[in-house]
Amino acid sequence: MTATQAAHQKETPRVVALSGGVGGAKLALGLSRVLPPGELMVIANTGDDFSHLGLEISPDIDTLVYTLAGLNNPETGWGRRSETWTFMDALGQLGGETWFRLGDGDVAMHVERTRRLAAGETLSDVTQSITRRLGIATSIVPMTNDRVRTRVRTDDGWLEFQDYFVRRQCAPAISAIEFTGAADAQPHPVFLAALRSERLETVVICPSNPFISVEPILALPGVRAALAGCAAPKIAVSPVIAGKAVKGPTAKMMAELGLEISAITIAQRYADFLDAYVLDEQDASLLGQLRVPAVAAKTLMTTLEDREVLARTVLDVADSVRGSRLVGVTVTT
Amino acid sequence: MTATQAAHQKETPRVVALSGGVGGAKLALGLSRVLPPGELMVIANTGDDFSHLGLEISPDIDTLVYTLAGLNNPETGWGRRSETWTFMDALGQLGGETWFRLGDGDVAMHVERTRRLAAGETLSDVTQSITRRLGIATSIVPMTNDRVRTRVRTDDGWLEFQDYFVRRQCAPAISAIEFTGAADAQPHPVFLAALRSERLETVVICPSNPFISVEPILALPGVRAALAGCAAPKIAVSPVIAGKAVKGPTAKMMAELGLEISAITIAQRYADFLDAYVLDEQDASLLGQLRVPAVAAKTLMTTLEDREVLARTVLDVADSVRGSRLVGVTVTT
Repeated sequence: MTATQAAHQKETPRVVALSGGVGGAKLALGLSRVLPPGELMVIANTGDDFSHLGLEISPDIDTLVYTLAGLNNPETGWGRRSETWTFMDALGQLGGETWFRLGDGDVAMHVERTRRLAAGETLSDVTQSITRRLGIATSIVPMTNDRVRTRVRTDDGWLEFQDYFVRRQCAPAISAIEFTGAADAQPHPVFLAALRSERLETVVICPSNPFISVEPILALPGVRAALAGCAAPKIAVSPVIAGKAVKGPTAKMMAELGLEISAITIAQRYADFLDAYVLDEQDASLLGQLRVPAVAAKTLMTTLEDREVLARTVLDVADSVRGSRLVGVTVTT
Repeated sequence: MTATQAAHQKETPRVVALSGGVGGAKLALGLSRVLPPGELMVIANTGDDFSHLGLEISPDIDTLVYTLAGLNNPETGWGRRSETWTFMDALGQLGGETWFRLGDGDVAMHVERTRRLAAGETLSDVTQSITRRLGIATSIVPMTNDRVRTRVRTDDGWLEFQDYFVRRQCAPAISAIEFTGAADAQPHPVFLAALRSERLETVVICPSNPFISVEPILALPGVRAALAGCAAPKIAVSPVIAGKAVKGPTAKMMAELGLEISAITIAQRYADFLDAYVLDEQDASLLGQLRVPAVAAKTLMTTLEDREVLARTVLDVADSVRGSRLVGVTVTT
């Protein structure tokens, strides 16, 4: 990507994608590569955001930024490539908290964001400025500039998300999830405007964890209604393959919440607005159980080509829905 | 140093040293090594402190901490040894300000301090906690917990100190220096208590820049009077050798302020409380011009042994003053 491409960022893109971190960012990268520059807007979950060490940290935004800038660490899935860890070592030496691992380059992002937020910029201003600086042609938009915080109820009581997710490594069994502040938060206006735009062709629900990555976005006032009323087809991609989550605690959380660990369950979470669904080729036998048009495809994104192929599949499904050509179920392998 | 030694930190030490950064820290290290553990209190200039990138930075405290913990970078004189620079590179990539070089390990100090200050701890609490954590037996005490900021009047108008010192590399000619906030700041109470203590044997004015490192301390209400009234001998070490400053802009500043660049001029700045003076062996010819007892010694501290030898010389001079044995001038080489 180049700075010239960043100038392509549009307020009314052809495709809007709702995304959390790693898995969502992989598909967002694929979409960004198969669409013309500037035609993708990614709405990022901010329910995972937290203040730590006095720094404002936005994990999903950063994973998207690093991924779309080609700066991401392919081994961890989070953070930056060619990272160093001197900050963390020195912080430990000083008696500071080290359970949330912050690489030296990553700290620069948090310091710069914290400084700019304190100076009165919004989270979306800061994010846009950084994506432009890094030459990212895709708009990355926080779901809201207001404070929403995911919390989980566990055997140990209600826990802040990063306490549960990182410090306790998802060990406590959860019985409920809430998005504190969501009811009073305003969805980002460019997100709602994009959903209303006649230019919009497709809304993609990325293969992120529905409970902690997508549903914070859906919990914002008016978002579910705006998606249901949006003229463009809404296509979700399953993060569950053959009864297992590709990454992270999705399957464990589903079991604890008493839900069947299945691509079907994921689709049900989006039933009120979903127009079509993409599940994995290993789950092709489930296609008949879905109430929306669906295709089975390779959803595991190992290579860059995998990301692009899945992105094209999703866009093709949307084209078919728009052309009313997709009325039943299809298997593409 | 060990954590056990840190337990020796005393509120009423035998020696108090007033210090700025590099040169002062060298003598402070020498003093800490020749005195029993816990018998040294270093009063650190905080006039150079500033907020940068949202971080609270205390350059002289940090140089003292790193030097006394053996973590200092011997090449630069500031910052940490074995430092990495990924933070700074990433910050530049994001469009952040990079004129003040912050190493990755050093950033941990600023993040931790900023977090603790924001949580309501005083600068001296934070500093004491960190020195104990690093096993430093010497007390490092900020001259005040209040905000004092050194500013210089230049051809370009009044400049904040780090803007002048680091960003502009002392290029503008200065015509005045002020310590904003000093008149309303309270000298740290343990500093004043130490000056009143019967245990106190010696006060050392380290070979720091008088104008920007020592005089901010002296500008605090009551400090000059407390020094003048203090029973223990007050001994200064010249930072000027043969008409040149060992390091930094001292000589340039003296010229611009219309002062003779000489060890004599330095002693005159402290005339109201000084009991004895140590200047460099190269300046032995100046001994007769001083109004206080003085010795000439090797003041250039290249090796660790140099630091210890100079520390012993200073303590010997103090002993002599206390025993009224030092009435004239002496040359020790």
